Amino acid sequence: MNEVVLYDYWRSSASYRVRIALNMLEIDHKTVSINLLEGEQRGPDYLALNPQGLVPALVIDGRTLTQSLSIIEYLAELQPECGLMPADSAGRQHVRALAYAIAMDIHPICNTHVAAYVMTITDKAEARGEWMKHFIADGLRKLEAMLGEFNGDFSFGDRPTMADLCLVPQVYNARRWGVDMTDLKRIVEIDGRCAALPAFQAAHPDRVKP
Amino acid sequence: MNEVVLYDYWRSSASYRVRIALNMLEIDHKTVSINLLEGEQRGPDYLALNPQGLVPALVIDGRTLTQSLSIIEYLAELQPECGLMPADSAGRQHVRALAYAIAMDIHPICNTHVAAYVMTITDKAEARGEWMKHFIADGLRKLEAMLGEFNGDFSFGDRPTMADLCLVPQVYNARRWGVDMTDLKRIVEIDGRCAALPAFQAAHPDRVKP
Repeated sequence: MNEVVLYDYWRSSASYRVRIALNMLEIDHKTVSINLLEGEQRGPDYLALNPQGLVPALVIDGRTLTQSLSIIEYLAELQPECGLMPADSAGRQHVRALAYAIAMDIHPICNTHVAAYVMTITDKAEARGEWMKHFIADGLRKLEAMLGEFNGDFSFGDRPTMADLCLVPQVYNARRWGVDMTDLKRIVEIDGRCAALPAFQAAHPDRVKP
Repeated sequence: MNEVVLYDYWRSSASYRVRIALNMLEIDHKTVSINLLEGEQRGPDYLALNPQGLVPALVIDGRTLTQSLSIIEYLAELQPECGLMPADSAGRQHVRALAYAIAMDIHPICNTHVAAYVMTITDKAEARGEWMKHFIADGLRKLEAMLGEFNGDFSFGDRPTMADLCLVPQVYNARRWGVDMTDLKRIVEIDGRCAALPAFQAAHPDRVKP
């Protein structure tokens, strides 16, 4: 196998998901930091790798992969025994639905470029923070209701799956923006169990911050 | 097989994707319309089916499935020969990345409840339309760049995949909001080829509008 390279930004939730996956699967890799605050994602070199100008991108098996959840599905297929995706179709459907409730219904709305646009259409200085709190709290409340259907140590069953790789970075963000977590008992519980695992610890933004 | 039931709203892009999939796979089903404008998605009966209060939901094989892309992956696994997902891992990764560039990076930001919230933080009457145009145009421009890498009649290869099931409803929406499509040649071409197929035609909002 050729060298695996992760194009990463320490605070990106999408990058954080892929960092956890690479750690869980023990895939040796090099990391290249793309500084989103300095606009490196819009440079011609990076756009040649990822025309969307988003992190992460992962060079593996001679290909450049983009979109965090698509990368995770690819890695999960490389090592099915890792349990990132359940072995049965109904289980996979559940895990994807939980993952998308975060990765589609919360994260994109709170992305940096969306929040920046919000600030151009309002005079309220506090609009950014209120935007984040509103959509993260609303989305996590719905996720908590979805999680209520399952019993297990993690989002789905007793091993971390792709759903947990989405949950943990979203909870990190929720805390950063001061979202009240009081009624999100299942989410807080699952996040706590993940936080005890070395693969999650090593991927934490504070650990990879340059 | 028990009765298959689709909980649907004619103008929802996410529902539209699943309608196309059910047609392509020729899965007999009943449709129940959930009127989003009248708030039926927030009624207790519907929340019991889908705690997120979103359409679509699909009752199939004795389960209630939510999240359009997760439903499509499930259906694709039921009938792998349908080609909705490629047979190889690298192909699936590409198709998912293209699908997510729409379903994660455009659609959620332009969802009704997000646009409604936007209107609460600005005095500009035209803010909703400008919001839609801005994010749809930006996202489709990036998708066009991603599509440039492939050659085929559809988004990936010569058969419609999950990526096309995302592309067509997004183009419908882009036209509805008056997005300039001039430079989106590949997207317009692919949309045109899909529009010639009966499975796409029968799923069109104008055809299922109550």
